[in-house]
Amino acid sequence: MKQFAVIGCGRFGSSVAETLYELGHEVLAIDINEERVQEISDRVTCAVQADVSDEKVLIELGIRNFDVVIISIGSNYQASIMATLIAKELGVKKVIAKANDELHGKVLSKIGADRIIFPERDMGIRVAHNLVSSNILDFIELSPDYGILEITALDEWANKTLKELKLPSRYGISVMAIKRDKNINISPYADDVILKGDILVVLGNTNDIESLEQSVGE
Amino acid sequence: MKQFAVIGCGRFGSSVAETLYELGHEVLAIDINEERVQEISDRVTCAVQADVSDEKVLIELGIRNFDVVIISIGSNYQASIMATLIAKELGVKKVIAKANDELHGKVLSKIGADRIIFPERDMGIRVAHNLVSSNILDFIELSPDYGILEITALDEWANKTLKELKLPSRYGISVMAIKRDKNINISPYADDVILKGDILVVLGNTNDIESLEQSVGE
Ligand SMILES: Nc1ncnc2c1ncn2[C@@H]1O[C@H](COP(=O)(O)OP(=O)(O)OP(=O)(O)O)[C@@H](O)[C@H]1O
Ligand SMILES: Nc1ncnc2c1ncn2[C@@H]1O[C@H](COP(=O)(O)OP(=O)(O)OP(=O)(O)O)[C@@H](O)[C@H]1O
Ligand SMILES: [Ca+2]
Ligand SMILES: [Ca+2]
Ligand SMILES: [Ca+2]
Ligand SMILES: [Ca+2]
Repeated sequence: MKQFAVIGCGRFGSSVAETLYELGHEVLAIDINEERVQEISDRVTCAVQADVSDEKVLIELGIRNFDVVIISIGSNYQASIMATLIAKELGVKKVIAKANDELHGKVLSKIGADRIIFPERDMGIRVAHNLVSSNILDFIELSPDYGILEITALDEWANKTLKELKLPSRYGISVMAIKRDKNINISPYADDVILKGDILVVLGNTNDIESLEQSVGE
Repeated sequence: MKQFAVIGCGRFGSSVAETLYELGHEVLAIDINEERVQEISDRVTCAVQADVSDEKVLIELGIRNFDVVIISIGSNYQASIMATLIAKELGVKKVIAKANDELHGKVLSKIGADRIIFPERDMGIRVAHNLVSSNILDFIELSPDYGILEITALDEWANKTLKELKLPSRYGISVMAIKRDKNINISPYADDVILKGDILVVLGNTNDIESLEQSVGE
């Protein structure tokens, strides 16, 4: 079990806090807004109302003893930057900070945040890829180079085996799983036959995936 | 090429709009805030300033002719709900709406939105999973039942083949890819040897993945 402090309980922060708590960890949630504190109090270990741009507050809350501190204050740059600075100065090993844009992210990184997260930007990229073609159900960037795509089998793929489809050589992608109704086959073999309506989970490099998306989207 | 209209150019909306445009599609971006319109104008096909809670505005912009309309207004419930309602009434086939919370999502769904997206909540879940163990690098829920995990090879996995590790039977997970430095092996074989520092991309059902996360997190 680890100890997490989540500072700022907006939509992103409260989702992080609640999920960590659900996964069995100790979670302290902090927000300046009393209503937000009330709302989250049943779904974390402890919730307190406090203004984290004040160093004394963070010292009193014993922030230095937490394994990870997540700073998820979007709208208030000053508070987000102050909290990051103080947490690092107090010696917290791992500080994760939410950023609104590139510039905010750069500042957070310069003052010591160990990881910067852009929730809205990253979900925007994911959703955009999902919308380009009705066959594309989901896209996730694993790194700038590689991604995962969920794609409904094209009509011309139906009733062929994976071996016949030659997807790795035709598109540079590799089939990791086949979803059919409620089942998922997580170790597909070359002889497995694709049926109409099957959903393929494929892995490949970003350029190859983008080419596939483009050819499918037309 | 498809035609997309993005209504509301906050962090999420502008990321969707810019990615769609980058992927080669036609994108109309709309925001009530002139500054936001200016900012995005170079990165989409066309950007206009307008208040979309007014039906006439959406008619004049020819919203009915777009393939997909994305409504990404978080803070202003009334505007988000009005825009969704009008877009569906004008006959737009696919309306995607961003929701702040469950209740907002339910309302949007009732008035006809074809898909509801909770960007902050979903990224919060993803990030929380990433934080529970230093071995866990990323987690993505593909469905309530299945997910993908990126995990640094445990020390005891080093110098063993996939066959020896028996991950499918021990943890119910399947190895889809192995990342080593800048390379990624997207079709790992049973005889492939895992080295210290390798990152495995694994697929499995959510419960099995959560058990693995728990055993790794201790
Ligand atoms: N000085 C502060 N101390 C503690 N909490 C603060 C402080 N300033 C802002 N907050 C809290 O941080 C939370 C997140 O801020 P806000 O909602 O403005 O950001 P956001 O990035 O839009 O969030 P979301 O994740 O909902 O998109 C809010 O609940 C707010 O009350
Ligand atoms: N009636 C309206 N007509 C057009 N645009 C609007 C209207 N009301 C709000 N907007 C725009 O919607 C955008 C998104 O709203 P806002 O930033 O409040 O939501 P958010 O969910 O917090 O966004 P983010 O994606 O940044 O987290 C803003 O740029 C705002 O100007
Ligand atoms: Ca839950
Ligand atoms: Ca790209
Ligand atoms: Ca937000
Ligand atoms: Ca769960």
